[in-house]
Amino acid sequence: MPGEFSLIDQYFKNVGTTGQLSRLGIGDDAAVLDVPAGQQLVMSVDTLVAGVHFPETTSAADIAHKALAVNLSDLAAMGATPAWFLLSITLPEVDQAWLSEFSDGLKKIAGQYEIELIGGDTCRGPLSITVQVNGLVDKDKYVTRSGAKPGDLIVVSGEPGNAALGLAFLQKKISLPKEIEDLAVKAINRPIPRLCLSVFLQEYANAAIDLSDGLVGDLKHILDKSGVGAVIRQADLPVNNWIKQNNAYQYALSGGDDYELCLTIPEKHRDQIETWNQANPDCLLHEIGEITKSGYYLTTTDGSIDLTRQTGFQHFGD
Amino acid sequence: MPGEFSLIDQYFKNVGTTGQLSRLGIGDDAAVLDVPAGQQLVMSVDTLVAGVHFPETTSAADIAHKALAVNLSDLAAMGATPAWFLLSITLPEVDQAWLSEFSDGLKKIAGQYEIELIGGDTCRGPLSITVQVNGLVDKDKYVTRSGAKPGDLIVVSGEPGNAALGLAFLQKKISLPKEIEDLAVKAINRPIPRLCLSVFLQEYANAAIDLSDGLVGDLKHILDKSGVGAVIRQADLPVNNWIKQNNAYQYALSGGDDYELCLTIPEKHRDQIETWNQANPDCLLHEIGEITKSGYYLTTTDGSIDLTRQTGFQHFGD
Repeated sequence: MPGEFSLIDQYFKNVGTTGQLSRLGIGDDAAVLDVPAGQQLVMSVDTLVAGVHFPETTSAADIAHKALAVNLSDLAAMGATPAWFLLSITLPEVDQAWLSEFSDGLKKIAGQYEIELIGGDTCRGPLSITVQVNGLVDKDKYVTRSGAKPGDLIVVSGEPGNAALGLAFLQKKISLPKEIEDLAVKAINRPIPRLCLSVFLQEYANAAIDLSDGLVGDLKHILDKSGVGAVIRQADLPVNNWIKQNNAYQYALSGGDDYELCLTIPEKHRDQIETWNQANPDCLLHEIGEITKSGYYLTTTDGSIDLTRQTGFQHFGD
Repeated sequence: MPGEFSLIDQYFKNVGTTGQLSRLGIGDDAAVLDVPAGQQLVMSVDTLVAGVHFPETTSAADIAHKALAVNLSDLAAMGATPAWFLLSITLPEVDQAWLSEFSDGLKKIAGQYEIELIGGDTCRGPLSITVQVNGLVDKDKYVTRSGAKPGDLIVVSGEPGNAALGLAFLQKKISLPKEIEDLAVKAINRPIPRLCLSVFLQEYANAAIDLSDGLVGDLKHILDKSGVGAVIRQADLPVNNWIKQNNAYQYALSGGDDYELCLTIPEKHRDQIETWNQANPDCLLHEIGEITKSGYYLTTTDGSIDLTRQTGFQHFGD
């Protein structure tokens, strides 16, 4: 696109910390990196498309935050630490004000999570943002979806459902009391990647996934990969008061975009959850069920629901 | 998008060789990789947007080839060897026939250049393909844009201009004799990443870049990064007969999408060019000019043109 190189110079240099690991960053055909001995590289890529992954009205700063946050969340789910990222941004036009706000938002979250932008691509087309994120993990200390064992506790961070509630509010499908509106809109626009949990995962989790598509569907990936079943107790879901009062648990069960983590933890480590919560009031963990040998059920006050038959809970996210 | 996971299982597993380096590929939150001791990681990302980087009528197999080829070309320009890649694909709808053809095309080029697909993302939206490519290079043996020195020979591979000619033909702006049409359409739809030159670059080149935006603009990046000038001799440009007969050198000078390499080589290595050409008739190198202390000129039969003033030759690609 016109002025691609000046765009990169102007808006995308010096985003994030200057890593000790990058030999050559933005401005060549490719970046060159050193991976430290004894560490493994953890890589993921996610694209956000305007009108699909965020409403067209979303601010440039919120888009920048979310594009990096959803990728950082994948690193968190693996127990990895952020290192560097690449950005490919497709723009319908060169809008200096938009780019400036996007760049500021990107610098803020990149600085917060200490990750460096090392390369990228800008081109013309319908608005979409692709981030390819790279983390590091001590050799073979990463956590996967495939390690869950019968008897493991199922644990989630934060309050699943807030993001789906925020999206429904922004789409004018529901009205909310002001304090719920605030936390719900923040959840959809400013998801928090749970990188603070990386070390906890490495120490105690048998399996983990981030909640991008909704709890029931995402946990199902752990079950499929691990060859196990699960029971979720609806009454134990850590949802906000509005969801409780309106019995609107579907937001927490099938609503996506929360980017909380779902872990499975051997029962012998139950005490570690309480210890964690006392030290980390901003990232509370909640036990919501357990891994079983087979089957997939939700227990509610009305009885038990077979989640394998609830097509409404399956993955229809974007 | 509906069935994201089944799409990945169906179309994007087992693309490329099964690398010895990937510990965990498609199917988790992220992939995990080992970078061998003594090697550095070389990373690039490029997005292709329908209607911008390829005509809407381009076949799925051609799009797959090109999306990976343009990224492999960045590795070639660094002197790196392909290792693994990630794919993020945005589709307006789930078209099984299109996906099948795309997947086949991707498998073909990934197999040819021995690179493994280790992860990715599929989502709904206007058609675009982002590839993030990863190569390896022996420690500090990579080649950059910034090493050109006065006196270096400027060398290009192949026949620059063919791709731009192919695009103009597909857009019905020109008509071409059949044999020129064939090579021009092949150049735009099936660019060849010049990975065969990686070792030659490491041994002999002071600087390199791939010709994605056009020779004059791309060489300018070498000049800017290296703090040098250049003279290009139009008569020495290795162009096809149609360009020569029609004096249509602008296709070679400012036409993009060739993905040939432009290198600068110390004069003492001139003999290596001839040695290379005798052994590699499918990837001929041609000396087209030399690096100078300053200035940027094209010498033609009509005299010398100052390229720094030719805004028409500057970067207006996509």
